[in-house]
Amino acid sequence: MISSKITGTGTFIPSLIKDNAAFLEEEFLNSDGSIFSSTNDVIIEKFKAITGIQERRYAIAEYTASDLAFFASERAIEDAKIDKEKIDYIILAHNFGDIKQGTIQGDMVPSLATRVKYRLGIENPNCVAYDILFGCPGWIQGVIQAQAFIKAGIANKCLIIGAETLSRVVDKHDRDSMIYSDGAGACIVEKTDQQDSGILSHASQTFAKEEAYHLYYGTSFNKNKDQNVRYIKMFGRKIYEFAITNVPTAMKLALDKSGLQVEDVKKIFIHQANEKMDEAIIKRFYRLFKKPVPEGIMPMSIHTLGNSSVATVPTLLDLVLKGKIENQEVHKGDVIILASVGAGMNINAIVYRF
Amino acid sequence: MISSKITGTGTFIPSLIKDNAAFLEEEFLNSDGSIFSSTNDVIIEKFKAITGIQERRYAIAEYTASDLAFFASERAIEDAKIDKEKIDYIILAHNFGDIKQGTIQGDMVPSLATRVKYRLGIENPNCVAYDILFGCPGWIQGVIQAQAFIKAGIANKCLIIGAETLSRVVDKHDRDSMIYSDGAGACIVEKTDQQDSGILSHASQTFAKEEAYHLYYGTSFNKNKDQNVRYIKMFGRKIYEFAITNVPTAMKLALDKSGLQVEDVKKIFIHQANEKMDEAIIKRFYRLFKKPVPEGIMPMSIHTLGNSSVATVPTLLDLVLKGKIENQEVHKGDVIILASVGAGMNINAIVYRF
Repeated sequence: MISSKITGTGTFIPSLIKDNAAFLEEEFLNSDGSIFSSTNDVIIEKFKAITGIQERRYAIAEYTASDLAFFASERAIEDAKIDKEKIDYIILAHNFGDIKQGTIQGDMVPSLATRVKYRLGIENPNCVAYDILFGCPGWIQGVIQAQAFIKAGIANKCLIIGAETLSRVVDKHDRDSMIYSDGAGACIVEKTDQQDSGILSHASQTFAKEEAYHLYYGTSFNKNKDQNVRYIKMFGRKIYEFAITNVPTAMKLALDKSGLQVEDVKKIFIHQANEKMDEAIIKRFYRLFKKPVPEGIMPMSIHTLGNSSVATVPTLLDLVLKGKIENQEVHKGDVIILASVGAGMNINAIVYRF
Repeated sequence: MISSKITGTGTFIPSLIKDNAAFLEEEFLNSDGSIFSSTNDVIIEKFKAITGIQERRYAIAEYTASDLAFFASERAIEDAKIDKEKIDYIILAHNFGDIKQGTIQGDMVPSLATRVKYRLGIENPNCVAYDILFGCPGWIQGVIQAQAFIKAGIANKCLIIGAETLSRVVDKHDRDSMIYSDGAGACIVEKTDQQDSGILSHASQTFAKEEAYHLYYGTSFNKNKDQNVRYIKMFGRKIYEFAITNVPTAMKLALDKSGLQVEDVKKIFIHQANEKMDEAIIKRFYRLFKKPVPEGIMPMSIHTLGNSSVATVPTLLDLVLKGKIENQEVHKGDVIILASVGAGMNINAIVYRF
């Protein structure tokens, strides 16, 4: 039996810090274009109480998503101590492409994975580079695909990256713009004979009934703006209900497939979408087993890094593995769950043993 | 041993026919913005002699790429006679997203695969829908991924679609705009125990050195146009040289892996990029075996359908299987090669037995 193991991680956290106070002067509107009755300080306080976000990171104007991806990749390759020429697949998850600051078109030709391969200077043509679009769960899905390629015998080493510059697709008139952040995270997944560790199981789902368009590319709440220009938009309340209903069962599905018990789970790395939502998901997950939520089970980075879509889970994993989140550690033999939810609506979960 | 077999195909050929004469009034410019010395009728005649394209298809304004994908998918599912609820994966290859006519932003949130799942009305959440970006070879790469999922035991039935509306990303001042077309093709790949048929082998490569940007999203040749708006652009001559050098060896790599001889190959379905280039690729492929090119080995659709990127190979396959291309047939037991080349620069090939 072969297994697939994460042998290195890397992240790139953009340097521009934008705190909540930076939104005090924005003109927030309702979806119908009307003005809010509350003042911005009240809106921001409520936003912080729900999402947990105090500040977020934006990439500098000179960088696009593939630059962020390249920086995170370099670090993951270095961390895994592998020869970059031995990488069989580069899988890059994003949802908007490279967007030059001040423009509105996403650029994905060539693919962002090719751009990363180009900047890494990899010569080997048999290193296949492609992009996957799967909403926020795209990076986890890339890891699932890498594992499938390893099982199928067509890959030994894969580089999986999640990178996004959401700051380039936000509608300034939408309160939800405060959620979004830029970032990139990457990992190396390698074939291993150590059956006791690596990816133990996974679950992956796409809900495409009425929820298909809960997250979408829509027009500004400011009706005076060009109605042909689109921004990232969401029905937050609907997503919250959808996520707390369906993510816990998907996580349980993955855990059941692994044959392990909920007590075996030492950490849960969940997409940093919204703190209250993440807490509710974990609570419901443990309720499925009639257990209380263990203290410290869920490392969080949303307070200072916001929601950087595909980048949150690999970034969080890298931060914990490198000892950069207080009181959060992972030890050899520990079982963890990686889980995500986002546009599609897609949900996935991986049960993994270090 | 399990094998992966194509059990159904479908295509959607858009209804708007644009013939070469429709370009007589365009103002074609050189890349530096200067005016051509030749008149348009001379340019068009030369274009036709090289590419073989007489006319191409454009989607009506009401349709975007995911609509085309949906129509092709419906036909592939019907052709395969499968229950749509039994599909494990929907893999959709494109490169520009859904682009509403008259706008410049590609829209991929939710993914186009989710949009197709939504329109197909598939209830099963375990049918995972994602998009792959891999240049023109994206559809073949999707088939390779489906096979990997089947081999890895995570899928039994996959729907793989290629869909693109290149007419929405052309620079009218660029002669190359005459190449591009809209379309969609799809197939169902299923797990089978019949080892004597199905996908026998494949090759897949990404060349990301200086050739990485041979195909790119660039500005108009008309320097008076908004330099922030991008269009599909290519260095045609460089791509030609790249393709005739590297595609034949990739095809040979796949054929060698299958253990078959070149004499066993009955048909080659190659990306409809440019007739002269395709002919040169096939000639060089047979030269690698010191053989002449067998007559009728390469069915072509480019004359009337143009280059619809990811859609050309599945469309061509569907047309031949349905007996819609004169003197071109495939019989049970026949070995064929599917091959493509495009942005990335990516190349792939599949050796398949019916």
